[in-house]
Amino acid sequence: MLPIMLDLATLKAAYAAGLTPFDLVEEVIARRKASDDPAVFITETADEDLRAAAKSLMEKAPEPNSLPLWGVPFAVKDNIDVAGLPTTAACPAFAYQPEKDSVVVARLKAAGALVIGKTNLDQFATGLNGTRSPYGAPRSVFDKSYVSGGSSSGSAVSVAAGLASFALGTDTAGSGRVPAAFNNLVGIKPTPGLVPNVGVVPACRSVDVVTIFAATVGDGVAIRKVMDGYDAGDPYSRKAVPVGLPGSGLRIGVLEGAEREFFGNAAVEALYDQAIERAKSLGATIVPFDYAPFRQAAELLYNGPWVAERLAAVKEFIGTNADDFDPTVRTIIEGAKAYDAVAAFEGQYTLGHLRQKALVEWEKLDVLMLPTSPTTYTVEAMLADPIVKNSHFGRYTNFANLFGYAAIAVPGGFGPDGLPSGVTFFGPSFSDDALAPFADAMHRACASGMGKDKSAALPDASKVAEPDDGLVTIMVVGAHLTGMPLNHELTGPGGTLVKTCRTAGDYRLFVLPNTTPPKPGLIREPGFAGKGLEVEVWKVTPAAFGRFVQNIPAPLGIGKVTLEDGSQVSGFLCEPYAIEGAQEVTELGGWRAYIASRR
Amino acid sequence: MLPIMLDLATLKAAYAAGLTPFDLVEEVIARRKASDDPAVFITETADEDLRAAAKSLMEKAPEPNSLPLWGVPFAVKDNIDVAGLPTTAACPAFAYQPEKDSVVVARLKAAGALVIGKTNLDQFATGLNGTRSPYGAPRSVFDKSYVSGGSSSGSAVSVAAGLASFALGTDTAGSGRVPAAFNNLVGIKPTPGLVPNVGVVPACRSVDVVTIFAATVGDGVAIRKVMDGYDAGDPYSRKAVPVGLPGSGLRIGVLEGAEREFFGNAAVEALYDQAIERAKSLGATIVPFDYAPFRQAAELLYNGPWVAERLAAVKEFIGTNADDFDPTVRTIIEGAKAYDAVAAFEGQYTLGHLRQKALVEWEKLDVLMLPTSPTTYTVEAMLADPIVKNSHFGRYTNFANLFGYAAIAVPGGFGPDGLPSGVTFFGPSFSDDALAPFADAMHRACASGMGKDKSAALPDASKVAEPDDGLVTIMVVGAHLTGMPLNHELTGPGGTLVKTCRTAGDYRLFVLPNTTPPKPGLIREPGFAGKGLEVEVWKVTPAAFGRFVQNIPAPLGIGKVTLEDGSQVSGFLCEPYAIEGAQEVTELGGWRAYIASRR
Repeated sequence: MLPIMLDLATLKAAYAAGLTPFDLVEEVIARRKASDDPAVFITETADEDLRAAAKSLMEKAPEPNSLPLWGVPFAVKDNIDVAGLPTTAACPAFAYQPEKDSVVVARLKAAGALVIGKTNLDQFATGLNGTRSPYGAPRSVFDKSYVSGGSSSGSAVSVAAGLASFALGTDTAGSGRVPAAFNNLVGIKPTPGLVPNVGVVPACRSVDVVTIFAATVGDGVAIRKVMDGYDAGDPYSRKAVPVGLPGSGLRIGVLEGAEREFFGNAAVEALYDQAIERAKSLGATIVPFDYAPFRQAAELLYNGPWVAERLAAVKEFIGTNADDFDPTVRTIIEGAKAYDAVAAFEGQYTLGHLRQKALVEWEKLDVLMLPTSPTTYTVEAMLADPIVKNSHFGRYTNFANLFGYAAIAVPGGFGPDGLPSGVTFFGPSFSDDALAPFADAMHRACASGMGKDKSAALPDASKVAEPDDGLVTIMVVGAHLTGMPLNHELTGPGGTLVKTCRTAGDYRLFVLPNTTPPKPGLIREPGFAGKGLEVEVWKVTPAAFGRFVQNIPAPLGIGKVTLEDGSQVSGFLCEPYAIEGAQEVTELGGWRAYIASRR
Repeated sequence: MLPIMLDLATLKAAYAAGLTPFDLVEEVIARRKASDDPAVFITETADEDLRAAAKSLMEKAPEPNSLPLWGVPFAVKDNIDVAGLPTTAACPAFAYQPEKDSVVVARLKAAGALVIGKTNLDQFATGLNGTRSPYGAPRSVFDKSYVSGGSSSGSAVSVAAGLASFALGTDTAGSGRVPAAFNNLVGIKPTPGLVPNVGVVPACRSVDVVTIFAATVGDGVAIRKVMDGYDAGDPYSRKAVPVGLPGSGLRIGVLEGAEREFFGNAAVEALYDQAIERAKSLGATIVPFDYAPFRQAAELLYNGPWVAERLAAVKEFIGTNADDFDPTVRTIIEGAKAYDAVAAFEGQYTLGHLRQKALVEWEKLDVLMLPTSPTTYTVEAMLADPIVKNSHFGRYTNFANLFGYAAIAVPGGFGPDGLPSGVTFFGPSFSDDALAPFADAMHRACASGMGKDKSAALPDASKVAEPDDGLVTIMVVGAHLTGMPLNHELTGPGGTLVKTCRTAGDYRLFVLPNTTPPKPGLIREPGFAGKGLEVEVWKVTPAAFGRFVQNIPAPLGIGKVTLEDGSQVSGFLCEPYAIEGAQEVTELGGWRAYIASRR
């Protein structure tokens, strides 16, 4: 029996225990049939095609879990091409039959994943609410009167309802994040350019991003790694170098003052405050920052020339088929005709100025943590005021792609009304991997389950490990100790003190003659029964360590030193010839005591 | 007596020898007065103001050469603000009195440089030829019937004629490079975003760059370093990390086949071929590449939506003062009205696709070397066909800022007609420093002098040193030698063998017991009279070196080892306790001989 949520770790374990892809597709077929939301899919993969895909997988890779996404069912937003299924962008008159898979779908299929269908969306991905589709409005899995969020509405619901292990969305304003918040899911929004958009119907081509809805951060990151990588067919695809973040003590920017806006939704505000407390308890430093430049950038996306990208994407079609558009979507897209090329460039200048203002805020921050959406609405309320209420959802999302950030939306618990909320972490371009461990830890600490299953425990197997911070430890014993003349060689390149401790007992310490500043020589003598010498352990980058070692003069060097706890770290050694006739100060217990004794 | 060209090294030596800034300004005043080109300046710094500036410098920093640009006279293109002088952009009706210096001028003044005047330009920096100005057309210093190049026309001529040590230009299409070629100068075009544009009249704000005309590459780089650095007031300013290039064996891309276009100018073509031979003789590898994607990007700058940036820069002024424009400039700028915001974004998409195609070419190249301009024209010929002939000058320049490259234009010798030509080196974003040594070497090897002085020798003091490659040398003695089991720890991270040599004579070599693979211990014993041990010296990055050291197990470590030539390098040491009772193999001369002896 599979649980409600088909997260990767659970499914992998089930396959290892004997479940077959044939069993899995029958389960998916049954769940799809039993679904209580008729608006999730625009086109389902036919039952027989799903069975054939399972058969084909078994022929290609019969060993269970022998591919990264072996037998993993996923849904695809219907603005992303899947060969054999029409792409509609939620506009029936626009529909076409793609000849090829989009690049991301091709990569996922090659990794063993199975497409279960094309999901509903706000038409042409224009919206954040999920009601702008002639195929109906998917609903939050927690309350059928509420919107699912959009534009990737059907994708989010398909995962939250347990129909798919994950689903692809697209995110221009926040379409890969808002529906995650409304359905208790993780939304992975890669840095623009990291995942190629070849075979995706553009919304705003310069800022569109393919996203992943998943049960856990670990799932989402694993799936993203299958999808990402440069493709020359996308003019915005980039060869990216990952950017790191501190492994601990993250400085997290949070809203303050007048920039805290929840449109009257006290439940979401309370959940945001809880998330702040949770982040603190996980070791983060909370830093209120000025959201104004981010908000102003967010406002540019719809109230600025970028809407012309939406027009560019459909300019011939809208000329002949204007009446086939959702009226709200048509209003928005036709609004683009007011902008000339001068306005387009002036929008870029304004954005550039806002980016510089945002950089000032970033100087005190490592990541931002914002409410994914400040509130939610019923379908009825949304339809009554579709542009203004939709814009509320984008208050804390719309800047992300304009500024080129990575983002991960995670569940943030449930309000008294039983509706979920979420927070989103934002990091600099290409910090996608670095953002994941803390986002995952926040999801786990929240203990709000996964998708529809509010009580599900997050599998340990999908936990995101802290990345190796890549730093090198080095033990110093003399002039590099804190407060000593050469300590700047560690602090200058950003080194940090890990601890003060002692060496193992079999080390002896000598005063090297004729050294400036005075330096000791540390020599190990197996069998010598001393008390150990006081030393400091520091962490530096490999490059700083390399330069540090390069600058050490003879007779000193860096080897491995055993500490009192038996561990070995890189640390200072001394060539034996140099201590002949040198004064021994082992008895003093360390260099600091020796220096003090000379005063 | 100062020579014709006031290059930095010569001027510095003159100051050191007793010349004063007061002498210098009198010389500049005299030269300005004697100038045979009346169109160089739009506004000259008044004689008394120049004398006052010299006085002020002497009060602030009386010691000769005590500031980086102490007493260095420079000219400023008249679209860059200098407090106290009007900014006209070569349009009298547009003129305004700036309250503040532009950021670059403020930085140069703070470094001791003296503004001698504001120079003529193609109006609103729209042109590459120098004839589009109501203040007259500056001429090439080598033939008064020929154009000076533009738009930074007066700036180039002021330096080439010895009126200034250097001059500021701006470069959107190629305005900082083409006039350098036509006046036997170096043109430094920084990567867009490196030098802030605050206080500069925009041409195309997203791709405008402030440039430097100088006598030598060394001068230009030194001046650029005074000017560069992030400023939040410029929406396109960036905090840059310098990008390196190989220190030797540069792979240089050159034109081939149908992309070789000189518009019938055989002299320039021959000089380009000579430059290719010169580059070869300096150790470069010549790689023909496909210029097509670069050319197509170049064509976008004027035949695409970017002209709307020119309109954005003057949109209110042109509404009231259209008749005050140069007719050609007006035609170009008013052409921008045809572009809507959709076209602006579509231009970005096209450029993105071309950037991806260019990246394919870059895979086989380190830098590009192109003719700075494929030909030149008389003023008369230019005025007869001002748009087409101007576009010829931009054939090999217009792509650079759209693609975000760094560029340095250098002199390339003189044709039989006595007119100079030049080549430009292009490197990736922020390779500005890395490009300089080879560009400088090419200028020196060309031996075509500086500016008007065709026979001037380039001062040794301005030679651009090969940048420190930042690599770390490490001596290995045992299992890391070429062909030995751990050699991959050096080759894996890209290490390269520098040499095989011997240590100094006072080292002894021991076989460490119980090591896998077998490893030696090297111990220095002052007074020991051996023959030295065979070792290898490798080069690796600091980070690779740091990781390498981190992975070395006890009892080995890295210290300083003295080689047979007396030099010291980082290399393997051994803790003394480990060699007690160990087999000595010093007599064999090295580890390789020991391993061979065991077979």
